[in-house]
Amino acid sequence: MTNISTSIGPPGAEGTPSGVPYRRVRAATEALLAPLTAEDCQVQSFADASPAKWHLAHVTWFFETFVLERFETDFQPFDTSFRVLFNSYYQGVGEQHPRPQRGLLTYPPLADVLRYRARVDSRMLALLGDEGAAGLQALVELGLQHEQQHQELILTDIKHALSYSPGHPAYAQRWPIAAVQPQSLRWFGFAEGLQEIGHQPSLDGGFCFDNETPRHRAWLDAFEIASRPVSNGEYLAFIHDGGYRRPELWLAMGWDWVRGGPPQAGRAAPLYWQLIDGRWYHHTLQGRVEIDACTPACHLSFFEADAYARWVGARLPTEAEWEHAARSLRSPAAATRPCNFADRGAFHPLPQPQAADEPVQMFGDVWEWTQSNYNPFPGYRPPPGAVGEYNGKFMCNQFVLRGGSCATPAGHVRASYRNFFPPDAQWQFSGLRLARDG
Amino acid sequence: MTNISTSIGPPGAEGTPSGVPYRRVRAATEALLAPLTAEDCQVQSFADASPAKWHLAHVTWFFETFVLERFETDFQPFDTSFRVLFNSYYQGVGEQHPRPQRGLLTYPPLADVLRYRARVDSRMLALLGDEGAAGLQALVELGLQHEQQHQELILTDIKHALSYSPGHPAYAQRWPIAAVQPQSLRWFGFAEGLQEIGHQPSLDGGFCFDNETPRHRAWLDAFEIASRPVSNGEYLAFIHDGGYRRPELWLAMGWDWVRGGPPQAGRAAPLYWQLIDGRWYHHTLQGRVEIDACTPACHLSFFEADAYARWVGARLPTEAEWEHAARSLRSPAAATRPCNFADRGAFHPLPQPQAADEPVQMFGDVWEWTQSNYNPFPGYRPPPGAVGEYNGKFMCNQFVLRGGSCATPAGHVRASYRNFFPPDAQWQFSGLRLARDG
Amino acid sequence: MTNISTSIGPPGAEGTPSGVPYRRVRAATEALLAPLTAEDCQVQSFADASPAKWHLAHVTWFFETFVLERFETDFQPFDTSFRVLFNSYYQGVGEQHPRPQRGLLTYPPLADVLRYRARVDSRMLALLGDEGAAGLQALVELGLQHEQQHQELILTDIKHALSYSPGHPAYAQRWPIAAVQPQSLRWFGFAEGLQEIGHQPSLDGGFCFDNETPRHRAWLDAFEIASRPVSNGEYLAFIHDGGYRRPELWLAMGWDWVRGGPPQAGRAAPLYWQLIDGRWYHHTLQGRVEIDACTPACHLSFFEADAYARWVGARLPTEAEWEHAARSLRSPAAATRPCNFADRGAFHPLPQPQAADEPVQMFGDVWEWTQSNYNPFPGYRPPPGAVGEYNGKFMCNQFVLRGGSCATPAGHVRASYRNFFPPDAQWQFSGLRLARDG
Amino acid sequence: MTNISTSIGPPGAEGTPSGVPYRRVRAATEALLAPLTAEDCQVQSFADASPAKWHLAHVTWFFETFVLERFETDFQPFDTSFRVLFNSYYQGVGEQHPRPQRGLLTYPPLADVLRYRARVDSRMLALLGDEGAAGLQALVELGLQHEQQHQELILTDIKHALSYSPGHPAYAQRWPIAAVQPQSLRWFGFAEGLQEIGHQPSLDGGFCFDNETPRHRAWLDAFEIASRPVSNGEYLAFIHDGGYRRPELWLAMGWDWVRGGPPQAGRAAPLYWQLIDGRWYHHTLQGRVEIDACTPACHLSFFEADAYARWVGARLPTEAEWEHAARSLRSPAAATRPCNFADRGAFHPLPQPQAADEPVQMFGDVWEWTQSNYNPFPGYRPPPGAVGEYNGKFMCNQFVLRGGSCATPAGHVRASYRNFFPPDAQWQFSGLRLARDG
Repeated sequence: MTNISTSIGPPGAEGTPSGVPYRRVRAATEALLAPLTAEDCQVQSFADASPAKWHLAHVTWFFETFVLERFETDFQPFDTSFRVLFNSYYQGVGEQHPRPQRGLLTYPPLADVLRYRARVDSRMLALLGDEGAAGLQALVELGLQHEQQHQELILTDIKHALSYSPGHPAYAQRWPIAAVQPQSLRWFGFAEGLQEIGHQPSLDGGFCFDNETPRHRAWLDAFEIASRPVSNGEYLAFIHDGGYRRPELWLAMGWDWVRGGPPQAGRAAPLYWQLIDGRWYHHTLQGRVEIDACTPACHLSFFEADAYARWVGARLPTEAEWEHAARSLRSPAAATRPCNFADRGAFHPLPQPQAADEPVQMFGDVWEWTQSNYNPFPGYRPPPGAVGEYNGKFMCNQFVLRGGSCATPAGHVRASYRNFFPPDAQWQFSGLRLARDG
Repeated sequence: MTNISTSIGPPGAEGTPSGVPYRRVRAATEALLAPLTAEDCQVQSFADASPAKWHLAHVTWFFETFVLERFETDFQPFDTSFRVLFNSYYQGVGEQHPRPQRGLLTYPPLADVLRYRARVDSRMLALLGDEGAAGLQALVELGLQHEQQHQELILTDIKHALSYSPGHPAYAQRWPIAAVQPQSLRWFGFAEGLQEIGHQPSLDGGFCFDNETPRHRAWLDAFEIASRPVSNGEYLAFIHDGGYRRPELWLAMGWDWVRGGPPQAGRAAPLYWQLIDGRWYHHTLQGRVEIDACTPACHLSFFEADAYARWVGARLPTEAEWEHAARSLRSPAAATRPCNFADRGAFHPLPQPQAADEPVQMFGDVWEWTQSNYNPFPGYRPPPGAVGEYNGKFMCNQFVLRGGSCATPAGHVRASYRNFFPPDAQWQFSGLRLARDG
Repeated sequence: MTNISTSIGPPGAEGTPSGVPYRRVRAATEALLAPLTAEDCQVQSFADASPAKWHLAHVTWFFETFVLERFETDFQPFDTSFRVLFNSYYQGVGEQHPRPQRGLLTYPPLADVLRYRARVDSRMLALLGDEGAAGLQALVELGLQHEQQHQELILTDIKHALSYSPGHPAYAQRWPIAAVQPQSLRWFGFAEGLQEIGHQPSLDGGFCFDNETPRHRAWLDAFEIASRPVSNGEYLAFIHDGGYRRPELWLAMGWDWVRGGPPQAGRAAPLYWQLIDGRWYHHTLQGRVEIDACTPACHLSFFEADAYARWVGARLPTEAEWEHAARSLRSPAAATRPCNFADRGAFHPLPQPQAADEPVQMFGDVWEWTQSNYNPFPGYRPPPGAVGEYNGKFMCNQFVLRGGSCATPAGHVRASYRNFFPPDAQWQFSGLRLARDG
Repeated sequence: MTNISTSIGPPGAEGTPSGVPYRRVRAATEALLAPLTAEDCQVQSFADASPAKWHLAHVTWFFETFVLERFETDFQPFDTSFRVLFNSYYQGVGEQHPRPQRGLLTYPPLADVLRYRARVDSRMLALLGDEGAAGLQALVELGLQHEQQHQELILTDIKHALSYSPGHPAYAQRWPIAAVQPQSLRWFGFAEGLQEIGHQPSLDGGFCFDNETPRHRAWLDAFEIASRPVSNGEYLAFIHDGGYRRPELWLAMGWDWVRGGPPQAGRAAPLYWQLIDGRWYHHTLQGRVEIDACTPACHLSFFEADAYARWVGARLPTEAEWEHAARSLRSPAAATRPCNFADRGAFHPLPQPQAADEPVQMFGDVWEWTQSNYNPFPGYRPPPGAVGEYNGKFMCNQFVLRGGSCATPAGHVRASYRNFFPPDAQWQFSGLRLARDG
């Protein structure tokens, strides 16, 4: 990684306050490429995923378009065609290259994309050395947070792409699984009351996305939340009890999804799971491995999470319940506790830790589906301009997930962080934690 | 209508308490057929609509399956094949005939369906004469409320089907439009506070659907709500301002919907609207007529309602706000005020009435889209058994509408009534009322 | 049928030469409606079929557009909207109503379509009384032949539509099947030589379609043709031998078609066949009946016919071979021999007759797939104008069938008659006769 | 290219009779990769194309499966997973990897595929040194001819893939276009007669594919054939005359294809053509260049070729006519005349040469659509076993093209060579030569 780091920019910028995090985040992105060939970086395995090469270029485009173009004197684009090629969905910036065709772009090749990154980095660091441009720091921070989101997507998208290659090539070394004792699931209760929900700088740190604001009041009835995420062993019991064959357990739309699954088969297990000679295996970033009963179940759609909860006589938490529970932990800030985030290098959820007197694994390991639609908080206003297209326009037919996963960069999430996906999405590291009325 | 009514059952049952509403609702359904041929009743114009003949049979199947089969001694089905043919979506009852093929069932013909209705009516009225069966009254009431819902669907579905026939055949006589003075839109404010939401028998009457329960507390920030629904004239201003060509006004999913509209054209106006020689017309149940500026806009999708609200700098109300506002009217019960429901016979929204010192047209005229997803109320539990499939399993990717429309039977809705459709649905009489933060 | 016939036109026209066939063909069309309700006539069960009501109107539109509009003084259309509604595919006439939406046209209702027919008949018969208009007779004859083609389609389309109604409603009375002795299949040989192919007025009668011309020479190598069509019993042996599970028997496109069949099943038998408790049944125009081993197999796609022939070590004949063999029969004209055409009233192929010293059942019973693509004969020229769109423009990706079926009007086909359908079409009465190299 | 060639095998084999062509063909394939990156070789731009990497592996699989497995003692597969991955469509060999997912296979990477090639080459050359194995030479020759077909596909597929990258990257250096004088189109006549069609070793060389046999007699009426292919300039006149807007010029299926073209636009020009500021350009293997009027038009579908011929009052030749005309050239063997094949390195059709007293450009430049369906010749029998799946099973809904193109290896085609594609295929170098009745 040293040489990549060295190539980023002039040493002069290294000492500036914002130059350091900038260099660190950018280098972390490129470090993810180490196990990949140029061919791996080229592939787009379905329309909702993107090639790693495209991710690398898009996050760079973000800085070029929203920072350099605005703050650089005599701005010249690196390549005029990139404005369209690497625009994801910002209508305010102009046209976009068709999303399902990202995997067909052999030009620019990976080497040129890395050159694009290096050139933008050099210009960014020069700019960061100049102090005082109003609004610059906020946009840089947004750009870095944005790049961290794409770091997670690089991992989930390459995992999906590699699942098409026979032989189950591994992205990373096998993580060490210490055999653990199954921990029985317990419940923690919370009293009813009017709670404050949403980003609170003194608790969550200075940065947040617009969708975490404004902080507002919400009434919560008494509820209980589970001590840990649902495990693979528990989920297998659901499968063995005919969970995928019993319509009464599913939302109507979920049942259609189950029956309309892989051609002529229907769905019968989570994404990447496979039954071979009576034993369950799954495709992971470490190749194909047998499923461990004590590890949190993941790659569940909202439909699966919801059906499992119904089967067990519980329900998913609302996002307000989840956030309230997370804020009640003894050390609520994700950053201050040891969690299984991407920096741990496991790239897979880890077995449940010893029982504690409060919920465990709320941050890291698996994103936890909530029953809440991804809707605007009361009083929500997106920022003006193209950058305002970041979140608000996607508030339809998606559900909120909370807590981060084993593919999320450490330090990226917080109690108010809202991730969101459509109810049939499975390729994220998504699991669930049960809740029930108090 | 007398002769249809006469054919229903033995006079002896007429005097029983539940016999009267039963006869009235059943007769009202058949009265809707008067203007239709057997061919009209056969047609299914898209997968989400059903033929009128199928509606007639399905509501009868509901009584046969959920009432007669349970309470009748020596129950024999009218026709064993009907159990599958006219089951809409109750997995607990068994298989269903494929929904998109309902329009292909020429057997049973309409005459046989009417015989089926008469025979079930006769048996139901005999049963209703026997007093005392526990649970019977509740199921009959559910069946009648269910039938009223299908009365509205018969109207919306036949309106859609007739739109395919050139010449714009009319279902009903032209309604009288008195030219009115446009009423400027005003706002009514509500203070913040913890409110009770959901069905309240003392206010709303004894019956409700399970999705209106349980009554629960919700915190509302201060808000304002518009004096009346958005009018055609106001919606035309949105069109003329390029509303359908400006992505920044739309949800991302809504913008895809706009561009993916009718082949090679994209969407540029609500369903049924057509621009002919510079003037706007629409297909109605009274044939094609010119659009009246002072009438509430309808056949809007959620996407259109949401985009209009954004354009005008306002937003849609939440369903809790809507319900709170409706309960604050001087005479909150829909049944006690004159409203434009189906019994009025207009089958179309009517022009705005004179301004009042409270919101007008909250009940009847057009269903009003809210920004709330159709989710379970806190503590919601569907009833056990197949009848529990009525509502809960559809709580995904749909939005709540409130207040009833010109096609809703009078007496059917109330302040807590929750209708729901996917965000792209247009064929209901759906409009919007604006809200904004207080 | 008398009263229908009486309603057609003024008695004065009855005696004219062309008035008689005109009245006869038009009455035969309406006679096909006798067993049908208005609902039956409304339904379109897939995009390639049309509602009976539409057929009735379209053949009338043909006379109105191509005869009345050209030859009538002061022509006025019956209804201007019909020009679009009932135009099948004649670009030269103008726009067409979208084919898959024919089943949604409840207007005009059936009664109005019958009035349209009566009015056009009256005007046609008046015109036919005037002698001498050049070109009139040829166009009337084309119109009548065209109407006969649609008589067959009314039968095949209603058979398809009725297959969606449970209970297997019957269109006609059960035909009498006399149990027969299976006749073993024999071969008749033909020597190589240069043959004349195509319509020959002295042999085939005066009328033909343009696609049967020009008569031309074709070299045929020696070949043999089977004594009769392949029977149900023989086809069952193919099924039992795994015919639908052996890719080596199928064209690549046919194998894709087999695997892509009815959802989650693949195809395993001809259209309408069903295995119930170990016995084979099929849907017929007389309801569901058990399959008879000695009856010609029908409702086969080209793919199935081709695979069967490969399985048995033979092949399909070319259309030139078929025509040459048909012309070698002792009484080659279809009209002069007793055949199972629609006038027989069986509406289903009949069991094989006693062996003869020449091929049997070449005309009637089932259309016989050939291995020949539907291509222009050498020197073929379509007639000028819109009427020239009748045949030539469909000469792509279709295969020729010969000989007529049990649903073809008697007198309609001849040795040079070319029917054509895409290789996956099954809803016609299509079977096969084997051939092999001589 | 030297070093690639050197890597193929032990020098000892170089001197054997079959070792020389084997090495030459294999090296020619790898030489095509020179301008490509590993990313370029990974991409599959639509389901009918394949990645270059897959082509490289598949032709190797052919030798491994059909030669080594049969003739090698103690055969061991290079990699057992390759049997499925690189099987194109041979059901007799077993399962195939899904065709549309070929572009998702990042494993094996390109380097491994090249190792696979080298290892198979080494074993093949060892085998070729052993003389005498019956059937070996024929299979090797088939394998080499097969590989040459894929050489052409590598070029057409990479051309298609590169068309998705903005900036129009070039595969090869710009070819030199000498400005030429337009040559007016002339006609050459042929008398009627019984002709022999199909492969004739004494004329065509020893090798042919099974679909060129058996040689057989066909009657041809008198006809005329054009002196050269239709040029870009002539095709532009068709466009300017509204060719793409006049349904009477198209087959019905072709007209649907025109209207159903690129989203919301319909088709208005051949594949790769683009009108920019009033001038026509096209994407070529040399980047985007302006269209030259005197060069043969290419990337035409059968539908476009057929419509053009109708517009100009001519027709496409039958394949028998084309072959008869080609055999009448003074030097009929393609190999003996200078033609624009792939070895010329132009990778694009070249402008028409000076007029001659016989047709020019019948071989090379563009494949010429015929009006003949791809059907079996009379008496055709595919060889037994999996290798028999090469041709016969594709004889459905495809049309024959003759003569080779600028992307065909020199020496690969002959007068009897039959290429075939569905009528909507455009990505081959396909054009047309007119014919008319004599």
